[in-house]
Amino acid sequence: MTNKKTHPFDEALQLSGANNSYSGHTSPAYANMRGPFGGITAAVLLKAILEHPEHLGDPLSLTVNYAAPVQDGAFTIQTQLMRTNRSTQHWFVTLAQAETIAATATAVFAKRRPTWGATERPFPTIPPMEQCDSLLPSFLPPWTKQYELRLKGGTAKLFASDADKGSSETVQWIQDKPPRLLDFASLTAICDVFFPRIFVRLGQFMPIGTVSLTIYFHVDAATLSAHGDAPLIGAARANRFGNSYFDQAAEIWTPAGNLLATTHQIVYFKG
Amino acid sequence: MTNKKTHPFDEALQLSGANNSYSGHTSPAYANMRGPFGGITAAVLLKAILEHPEHLGDPLSLTVNYAAPVQDGAFTIQTQLMRTNRSTQHWFVTLAQAETIAATATAVFAKRRPTWGATERPFPTIPPMEQCDSLLPSFLPPWTKQYELRLKGGTAKLFASDADKGSSETVQWIQDKPPRLLDFASLTAICDVFFPRIFVRLGQFMPIGTVSLTIYFHVDAATLSAHGDAPLIGAARANRFGNSYFDQAAEIWTPAGNLLATTHQIVYFKG
Repeated sequence: MTNKKTHPFDEALQLSGANNSYSGHTSPAYANMRGPFGGITAAVLLKAILEHPEHLGDPLSLTVNYAAPVQDGAFTIQTQLMRTNRSTQHWFVTLAQAETIAATATAVFAKRRPTWGATERPFPTIPPMEQCDSLLPSFLPPWTKQYELRLKGGTAKLFASDADKGSSETVQWIQDKPPRLLDFASLTAICDVFFPRIFVRLGQFMPIGTVSLTIYFHVDAATLSAHGDAPLIGAARANRFGNSYFDQAAEIWTPAGNLLATTHQIVYFKG
Repeated sequence: MTNKKTHPFDEALQLSGANNSYSGHTSPAYANMRGPFGGITAAVLLKAILEHPEHLGDPLSLTVNYAAPVQDGAFTIQTQLMRTNRSTQHWFVTLAQAETIAATATAVFAKRRPTWGATERPFPTIPPMEQCDSLLPSFLPPWTKQYELRLKGGTAKLFASDADKGSSETVQWIQDKPPRLLDFASLTAICDVFFPRIFVRLGQFMPIGTVSLTIYFHVDAATLSAHGDAPLIGAARANRFGNSYFDQAAEIWTPAGNLLATTHQIVYFKG
């Protein structure tokens, strides 16, 4: 124990337990409209594997299915190692509250080797962070206060009109608040910080809920560690809205143009 | 029983069993370089849920993790209903051979209601099917013969040069061969028919293997049924290649511009 203050993110991710069974507790700092921010749930599911003594290599892919609202309070996580190969490993993880499954996840971990590489997706353009405003509507839920979120074009302007904008694409600066050294758990949560694309597209708030989230990690732990606690750049857009659901495709970049993660989700909306 | 010839796709997807435990067999028609085509494995995992008496609504999302090579021969599928809500349902499915887990999958099923809708992603352009050649290299594995695959710009030209093309994007016509009425199982397999993006980008063949595949379905069963057995249009590209893995993002459209599915995968390559 030290008297150094623990970052709220690390407090939210505290787990106790062993032998594939762990206990945790939701954090008021990362609360959403109802229950916790989906990104913190994804992060704690991944952390249960990252802390597992049998885990091999770094996360390569993670899919989280949100099966039921997580209630504020205690939860249990069960990890199951489905298969270990020479360089990859497959996990299945569940989060439950009082016998009720609230989320399931599968993850692939991998040891990666240097190969030819190229980033095909164009790096998004955004003005310097200090030129983008950080105004967020005051009624947004607590988790939004744990991030510095500064949108190209201005955050306040985003919801200024309820006309159909024809596009839901945003580019934004993203940073833990207070700043925190980047790792796979925090990158996982950051993959879910984008405002729901239907809010952006229509300039309206409505009940929504992410049903499934997938992340592909394109870098190793050393690359994340070398990034330190500097801000990141995210870009997100939808492909299709309709019949109660829309999808979101997004990327997380370093300001130097290193693509850290690509992420997708499918989201319920009550339209 | 009728004497009407069963389509090879339906033969490959035959399952027997009940009570969450089913038996199937790989099909020589859908063989890949080693073991079966990943798309047919994804399709049979989904079919186990589609045939389950407790399944609710239509598939909304599917993630398949390929844990080990599937060997030619018999396999067993175990389905597990993790949670049923009013309008969504969460499944976990495994495919095993002789106690070895070869694949795991999670799926969300949903009952959808009419809402506001819009397709944000631009519809790709491609010449009429009859103007695109269907020449495939003769050494490609058997499953490629089960599809009519006609690429914009020509299939043969794709591998004519081993220079780095700077882009891995392709647009192509896709149809079951012989034609077959579209359903969620066949659409699932079709989401995996794109040539590995590293072959396209570098004009070279090398050992590859999909590690994780995710599909978001944007339409219901009635929409697929109304499409009949007509060809589809697919577009695919990579975002990032590096350190033994690359990703692929793709979309499946009707020729009339209806976006049926968006799909992503992360793929190992031995570079």
